[in-house]
Amino acid sequence: MAAILAPRRSAAILGLAEGLRRDSAEILRANGRDVAAATAAGLDAALIERLRLDDARVEKMAKAVEEIAAQPDPVGSVVDQNIRPNGLNIKRIRVPLGVVLFVYESRPNVTSDAAALALRSGNAIILRGGKESLHSNLAIGRIVRDAVTTAGLPEDAVQLVESTDRALLGGLLRRSGEIDLVIPRGGKGLITAVVDQARMPVLKHFDGNCHLYVDASAVAMPERVVEVCVNAKTSYPGGAVCNAVEKILFHEAAAGLIPAVCAGLAAKGVEIRGDESVRAAYAAAIPATEADWHAEYLSFRIALKVVKNLDAAIAHINLYGSRHTDGILTNDAAAAEDFTRRVDTASVMINASTRFADGGEYGLGAELGISTDKLHARGPMGAFDMTTTKWVVTGDFHCR
Amino acid sequence: MAAILAPRRSAAILGLAEGLRRDSAEILRANGRDVAAATAAGLDAALIERLRLDDARVEKMAKAVEEIAAQPDPVGSVVDQNIRPNGLNIKRIRVPLGVVLFVYESRPNVTSDAAALALRSGNAIILRGGKESLHSNLAIGRIVRDAVTTAGLPEDAVQLVESTDRALLGGLLRRSGEIDLVIPRGGKGLITAVVDQARMPVLKHFDGNCHLYVDASAVAMPERVVEVCVNAKTSYPGGAVCNAVEKILFHEAAAGLIPAVCAGLAAKGVEIRGDESVRAAYAAAIPATEADWHAEYLSFRIALKVVKNLDAAIAHINLYGSRHTDGILTNDAAAAEDFTRRVDTASVMINASTRFADGGEYGLGAELGISTDKLHARGPMGAFDMTTTKWVVTGDFHCR
Repeated sequence: MAAILAPRRSAAILGLAEGLRRDSAEILRANGRDVAAATAAGLDAALIERLRLDDARVEKMAKAVEEIAAQPDPVGSVVDQNIRPNGLNIKRIRVPLGVVLFVYESRPNVTSDAAALALRSGNAIILRGGKESLHSNLAIGRIVRDAVTTAGLPEDAVQLVESTDRALLGGLLRRSGEIDLVIPRGGKGLITAVVDQARMPVLKHFDGNCHLYVDASAVAMPERVVEVCVNAKTSYPGGAVCNAVEKILFHEAAAGLIPAVCAGLAAKGVEIRGDESVRAAYAAAIPATEADWHAEYLSFRIALKVVKNLDAAIAHINLYGSRHTDGILTNDAAAAEDFTRRVDTASVMINASTRFADGGEYGLGAELGISTDKLHARGPMGAFDMTTTKWVVTGDFHCR
Repeated sequence: MAAILAPRRSAAILGLAEGLRRDSAEILRANGRDVAAATAAGLDAALIERLRLDDARVEKMAKAVEEIAAQPDPVGSVVDQNIRPNGLNIKRIRVPLGVVLFVYESRPNVTSDAAALALRSGNAIILRGGKESLHSNLAIGRIVRDAVTTAGLPEDAVQLVESTDRALLGGLLRRSGEIDLVIPRGGKGLITAVVDQARMPVLKHFDGNCHLYVDASAVAMPERVVEVCVNAKTSYPGGAVCNAVEKILFHEAAAGLIPAVCAGLAAKGVEIRGDESVRAAYAAAIPATEADWHAEYLSFRIALKVVKNLDAAIAHINLYGSRHTDGILTNDAAAAEDFTRRVDTASVMINASTRFADGGEYGLGAELGISTDKLHARGPMGAFDMTTTKWVVTGDFHCR
């Protein structure tokens, strides 16, 4: 794969987009089997909804793949370069990681997203999806293989594991000599199982205990604050998404906004918890406990707190947060800059809903997941994060 | 530390360089105690030589620190930026990792190098040196602390562990909530012990089984090939360094160079092993076994092999190499490009001695070590590799 240049990889990605459109009937047929099996098994309605494909969703898959095809190719791009006094040319370039194992759960669109991102970054990828979406994944996998071989790439550049046997996955996770990286994407059970068994590096996403901090200056913009807070909590059905806001901190000078924010949230059916100051402003709030500040609810529940100032907000987020996504609502540029510098998080949102923390929204076309690790990749991971670097030193038979 | 801007960190680094020069007598006195203790304990002469400081070496330490002070600050530099169709500004910037634990062995200059690199990258660092250099490290540590406090930084920005107790180190390695990364630098025993105990990510350097491939086209430049091969093997005393070449592969059309290369190596006292083709060209070569192709000798020993072509050379290096440093000697630009793209290694050397794989030689001022990992950092690690990224999303109260 390392020898295959960008245009051929782009051709394979575009071929995949075409294939998804051309064979959408076949994908929908296979998906129908998965949905029927999930329904018969009595799976959760939200899970079945995530599993289900229709014409519009297949078209969206093709569009995401096309967006990835249009991205600048990361392979070979120069990170830095300098000529040393002795004339040596020292260059650091981006190169593929090698072989990536991607372990994921129910949504079938992730199969085409991951294949396209691997092709864009010049990696070989092994896709191991969940058993609920096996037929959908097999159908998409056949289209990927067609596109890969038609473009003249090795047919195993993208491999779909055709079994969801756990022992087989355990075997793959021990092959550190052949697999350079594993990325698990899904629920906490899946991620913990992969971390425990993997002998190779893991890039992962744990909690999303996301915060918004309402700065003193935001008091001048009550409607906009309410709108962003409500959007950050409720725009995904049931709040069951990692980038939904779980905590809102109010500067004490902005505590006057609490009733309006609570009314907005309550109107959407959100359960509100709060510290004493919040309860003084909104009597219906349930008392928040220490456990609340640590919790990722993944539901229509939220906890609110009043803090003395920006420093206290930053200290709270750095202590309780999960380093996923944390934002500030303010019209004070200095406060925004200070918050950005000092909050230890993958994504800082300045006057934007936490819900934007997403590879598609960031222009990555799609994402392999959102890393809450600090090493190698942080936040939404796209093709760039599937590369490493290589130093290239060019001399004229230089000796040291 | 994240709130402290580049000029104050630069002032602390320059203060360290000044302090090293000002208090060199104190450093040398402390170093004398370490050298006397090491001599009394009957330690290896090479180890004592690495431990010993003199005026010239202290001046070299100060110069390395000044070079780091002059480097562009990585913190806040923009990795990429785009404005989305909805007007959101998406930026990825470099930020410090947080707290780095650095565990290293005998050379005292590493103490000032590591302190300066941590300050350049905005990290707090915990320095845990070897027991042989404890007095030298304590003296340098006092100068670091002076420079840090004089510049108005938190006094614990650089902490030197004043005990070399192994249980204490074991305790630090369990503190994954407070330490973001550990970098061990030293012998294989140290690195294995750290990897086994650490609960946080580790960046490490294992073997340096480095290769040079002599391409067919190099046959036209026999003297230059001999010069680079001999330099790569012998320029460090005893060959006891990770970037010394351990294997030389000859294209079969360049096998005519074998006698001259062997003569040059033998004249320096290098023991030569070889496959049958090498032994046909140089009868004194000892037969090489399968174990030789895997070995990192770290001594004046080398193994040579004839390969059919560039593809065979790349396949051999990717199979047996340690992904540290691998080079090609050629005047064929296409061969150099193909080799660069397909060899899976941290540093590719084109017509240069493998001995250049070093932070100082690459312009990093110094290095924390040479990573043979592929994730996060690869090859010589300087201030840049002690940073991670943060996404900064700026909106106008955007909702999704």
